[in-house]
Amino acid sequence: MLEEGKVEELNNTRRRTTWWIRKKHVRVGLAETLSTFVMMVFGLGSVAQVVTGGGFGDYLSINLGFGLGVAMGVHTGGKVSGAHMNAAVTFTMCVLGRLSWKMLPVYVIAQLLGSFTAAGTVFTLYYDAIYQYCEGNFTVFGPKATAGIFATYPAPYLSIQAGFLDQVLGTAMLLLCLMALADKRNQPAPAGGEPVAIGALILLIGVSMGSNSGYAINPTRDLGPRVFTAIAGWGLDVFRAGNNWWWVPLVAPLVGGVTGALIYKAFVELLHPTQEDKKAEHSGSSECISLNQCNKNNIGECVNC
Amino acid sequence: MLEEGKVEELNNTRRRTTWWIRKKHVRVGLAETLSTFVMMVFGLGSVAQVVTGGGFGDYLSINLGFGLGVAMGVHTGGKVSGAHMNAAVTFTMCVLGRLSWKMLPVYVIAQLLGSFTAAGTVFTLYYDAIYQYCEGNFTVFGPKATAGIFATYPAPYLSIQAGFLDQVLGTAMLLLCLMALADKRNQPAPAGGEPVAIGALILLIGVSMGSNSGYAINPTRDLGPRVFTAIAGWGLDVFRAGNNWWWVPLVAPLVGGVTGALIYKAFVELLHPTQEDKKAEHSGSSECISLNQCNKNNIGECVNC
Amino acid sequence: MLEEGKVEELNNTRRRTTWWIRKKHVRVGLAETLSTFVMMVFGLGSVAQVVTGGGFGDYLSINLGFGLGVAMGVHTGGKVSGAHMNAAVTFTMCVLGRLSWKMLPVYVIAQLLGSFTAAGTVFTLYYDAIYQYCEGNFTVFGPKATAGIFATYPAPYLSIQAGFLDQVLGTAMLLLCLMALADKRNQPAPAGGEPVAIGALILLIGVSMGSNSGYAINPTRDLGPRVFTAIAGWGLDVFRAGNNWWWVPLVAPLVGGVTGALIYKAFVELLHPTQEDKKAEHSGSSECISLNQCNKNNIGECVNC
Amino acid sequence: MLEEGKVEELNNTRRRTTWWIRKKHVRVGLAETLSTFVMMVFGLGSVAQVVTGGGFGDYLSINLGFGLGVAMGVHTGGKVSGAHMNAAVTFTMCVLGRLSWKMLPVYVIAQLLGSFTAAGTVFTLYYDAIYQYCEGNFTVFGPKATAGIFATYPAPYLSIQAGFLDQVLGTAMLLLCLMALADKRNQPAPAGGEPVAIGALILLIGVSMGSNSGYAINPTRDLGPRVFTAIAGWGLDVFRAGNNWWWVPLVAPLVGGVTGALIYKAFVELLHPTQEDKKAEHSGSSECISLNQCNKNNIGECVNC
Repeated sequence: MLEEGKVEELNNTRRRTTWWIRKKHVRVGLAETLSTFVMMVFGLGSVAQVVTGGGFGDYLSINLGFGLGVAMGVHTGGKVSGAHMNAAVTFTMCVLGRLSWKMLPVYVIAQLLGSFTAAGTVFTLYYDAIYQYCEGNFTVFGPKATAGIFATYPAPYLSIQAGFLDQVLGTAMLLLCLMALADKRNQPAPAGGEPVAIGALILLIGVSMGSNSGYAINPTRDLGPRVFTAIAGWGLDVFRAGNNWWWVPLVAPLVGGVTGALIYKAFVELLHPTQEDKKAEHSGSSECISLNQCNKNNIGECVNC
Repeated sequence: MLEEGKVEELNNTRRRTTWWIRKKHVRVGLAETLSTFVMMVFGLGSVAQVVTGGGFGDYLSINLGFGLGVAMGVHTGGKVSGAHMNAAVTFTMCVLGRLSWKMLPVYVIAQLLGSFTAAGTVFTLYYDAIYQYCEGNFTVFGPKATAGIFATYPAPYLSIQAGFLDQVLGTAMLLLCLMALADKRNQPAPAGGEPVAIGALILLIGVSMGSNSGYAINPTRDLGPRVFTAIAGWGLDVFRAGNNWWWVPLVAPLVGGVTGALIYKAFVELLHPTQEDKKAEHSGSSECISLNQCNKNNIGECVNC
Repeated sequence: MLEEGKVEELNNTRRRTTWWIRKKHVRVGLAETLSTFVMMVFGLGSVAQVVTGGGFGDYLSINLGFGLGVAMGVHTGGKVSGAHMNAAVTFTMCVLGRLSWKMLPVYVIAQLLGSFTAAGTVFTLYYDAIYQYCEGNFTVFGPKATAGIFATYPAPYLSIQAGFLDQVLGTAMLLLCLMALADKRNQPAPAGGEPVAIGALILLIGVSMGSNSGYAINPTRDLGPRVFTAIAGWGLDVFRAGNNWWWVPLVAPLVGGVTGALIYKAFVELLHPTQEDKKAEHSGSSECISLNQCNKNNIGECVNC
Repeated sequence: MLEEGKVEELNNTRRRTTWWIRKKHVRVGLAETLSTFVMMVFGLGSVAQVVTGGGFGDYLSINLGFGLGVAMGVHTGGKVSGAHMNAAVTFTMCVLGRLSWKMLPVYVIAQLLGSFTAAGTVFTLYYDAIYQYCEGNFTVFGPKATAGIFATYPAPYLSIQAGFLDQVLGTAMLLLCLMALADKRNQPAPAGGEPVAIGALILLIGVSMGSNSGYAINPTRDLGPRVFTAIAGWGLDVFRAGNNWWWVPLVAPLVGGVTGALIYKAFVELLHPTQEDKKAEHSGSSECISLNQCNKNNIGECVNC
């Protein structure tokens, strides 16, 4: 009797647990979808406006559109799903053991849903503008090409190898800095200021690493809108363009993300002193490193001036 | 005797109460008027400067003018009236049950007063500049049109339906993000940083959703200055232009605001776990979602690295 | 004997006091000089760079130069002198009774010293650039005029009356917003964020109220550099130009500053509820004003959702 | 016996200490290398993008690239090495006695390593773009010169003396403001906001003091990439150009940095009142300096309104 009761109880717990896991998956998935949607509507919207509008912004507007778009995306789902909005971030977290691999498909599907829907929304929003700009010819190549509003394409001079490296490097810088912004033992983003700090990082990458191939640095940001354009009238050229460019923003960011995170770990995180190290250092020479510190303490500690 | 005393007391309380309500209405109304005035003087001023000046800024200046203008508006009345400065925000709050419908007219009148007065102020401030630019012809159409300094008009290619959708979408994104910025159980704007966060959101909407019809996304921001221009010399063309465009920024933002707020509620707010859910989750699988969390705790909690 | 001792002591106190006052005057004066110097080197430097350089920035750079320059000026002297860096701010504080009139000359002299020295520094720094740009002709008028690097001049279309109003309005908006940023019972700048908030305000004024006459909105910012240019080679034209414009940025900001501060007081500050009012309100109808508040509390208080 | 034991213990302590010092040097060195690398990849990347790209940003993008690049650099190594990323900062700290001279070479070598590697990375990243832009001619002079992507060169009009002064002044303003941002008894950068504040300062210097010679204001930022370009194909012209300009950004910033820091000390830091001064002042006249203070306290203290 007693044992049966226990088994019953255990089963109940298990069932409840499974239910909560599922509910959590839903919650995380919906938040991730909505954050990605928010980021992408603002980001793609800014490109559409610059491409089709006469004088409604320039390249910096696009940098601001994606930078602040990411910031608003983080505000939208930050404490629910983490608002990765980028499969390279999710993948890197799985590799680092900070997220279980079982969650990867939840995130990827949510991100693809979000970016696909955002592409549709921006297409609808700017349909008249795009139509008038390209006179109804939705093309991937040529002077009035508009496919670049949605997915990224390489500059004509860029070889596939250089493009692959471009995406590896961009995503490496992204993850390297995201690791720094999250490292509580270093100089992280101030509490509550994470969305703006991450947005500024995206703006910065756009300002310094964008001209080669449009800084996708994000597989899910790129694939969703690319598939949408294939369906919505641009056709399969969106996959053929740039020497079959489409797979580069899917694969290279995964390589780059992990590389960047590991570089930060190797150069900074793994070297953080333990409590013991700190004690030992105080008996040695303790240097001050900032302008507001003076080396005057007689037990060798750095003190504020 | 005793009962009469009580009645007397009750009446006193009632009278005092009524008086305080009225005083509060005055206080809220004046603060809302002043915040809207501040936002609009800066916003319209930036448009006037770009339209009439030779080289004094470009489209990004206007985005900054409205973005930072909203931030200063929030500083001006934020803790007194909430500094909605936008009837779509006030209306959405009433629909959500966060503000009583009785307050709606107070806000709307205050906002209209503020935006009307601001239009007059900017008209006076830039009268010489506008006069010299359009050689005294205050027109709504044509290459030297200046009515667009004050109210919004659609691009020539835009149909009324597409314009209506444009205003619905823009205001939906506004309210969706405002809900996120205010959601204490998610990743809200940091304490004290609300004005800047809201300003950045407005800047972002301008950068990504402005070229179709000038991102009014606000009935009271648009109507006050439009009425002013009708009186000040532009005539009734301000209502006729764009296929009688004037009513779109009045109606569409109300639809969009509520839609955006409900989307945030459906995707994020309503799914926030209760205290019980949180406990239940700990016995299930608890995933870490941010780069600064590690899944090492033996009771399954996410802990900082 | 005893009485003499007391007199002696009193005299000592007086002497010590006088000495401290003097020392404080020195301290405040030097900090105010240095903050004004910092603001003006950055501000004038950004104008010099845009005027003389080919492609080194545009009007927005100047807005950023003065905006961030003011922010750095506030960092330089903020907690020592308040870093007014503007006689209109000092004057308004005296009128409001927040600073004794005896301090006015200390501030004004310090500000003039700072802005004069900064003009000299920028002149030296950009001497080669200015010389090459204007081919050695330091003129106030004409296509290669360079006096506008240092002091402000009105646009050709601007009448003196309109210019006076321009300066009154600009400074009124400045002080109105400064009052809001400092009002602890409203939505002030977050602690530690004052320099950036004030800098953003200056950027905003430049973006929306600058094309008429270069947004001096500051007597000491304008006079010091104007006198410097008169001496350094531009001659007395700097006073004659713009229909003897020079006195407008000296007088109008004083009028505007006080007006703006009083408007904020009348619309917001004087209406802040006392503790008693707050109690009374709770027995009446208490409205929620922000998106993160719900009217659910049974004693009528606004509570966070 | 006892004495020998003590000697043994002492030796152990010494050995352990030496080991920790070394480990600390490694830790500081690696963090400084990585921060400098991060700053320089973003900074140089933004120049490469503007120089080679058609319409991918303008001068303001470069200001943002270095400004936000510095901010991310400070996030990367801030609490480990202080993230000086600039030998002039390290040198000034040694002169002020806040860092031991023994650490100077560690910092300088790390910074040179970081900036050299960053130059190599940006060269690889933009190789195709640079090659296509200059048609394979890597030159220091002429209309298609590309050496300026990596190191700084003076404007044609600039004499060596004026250029030296330019670098002294720029670095003086940098250190003056860095001292202010770090001064806890004044108005410092808010806790956690240091990276952004320092980044804004760099942006500001670029916006106002950049057109003469490209605002190196940093010996190690300039030398590493210059040596790299000498090796990578631009040849020894990178040292000959601008009348042997190369040594100016190495020497002048050292002079300027110390000067700026001393000016801040003389005008502000050394005059901060001691506890005694503060007491004495209260018996004298105590002025309020900010808009949110009123002089109403009867013991003469400034109190918030």
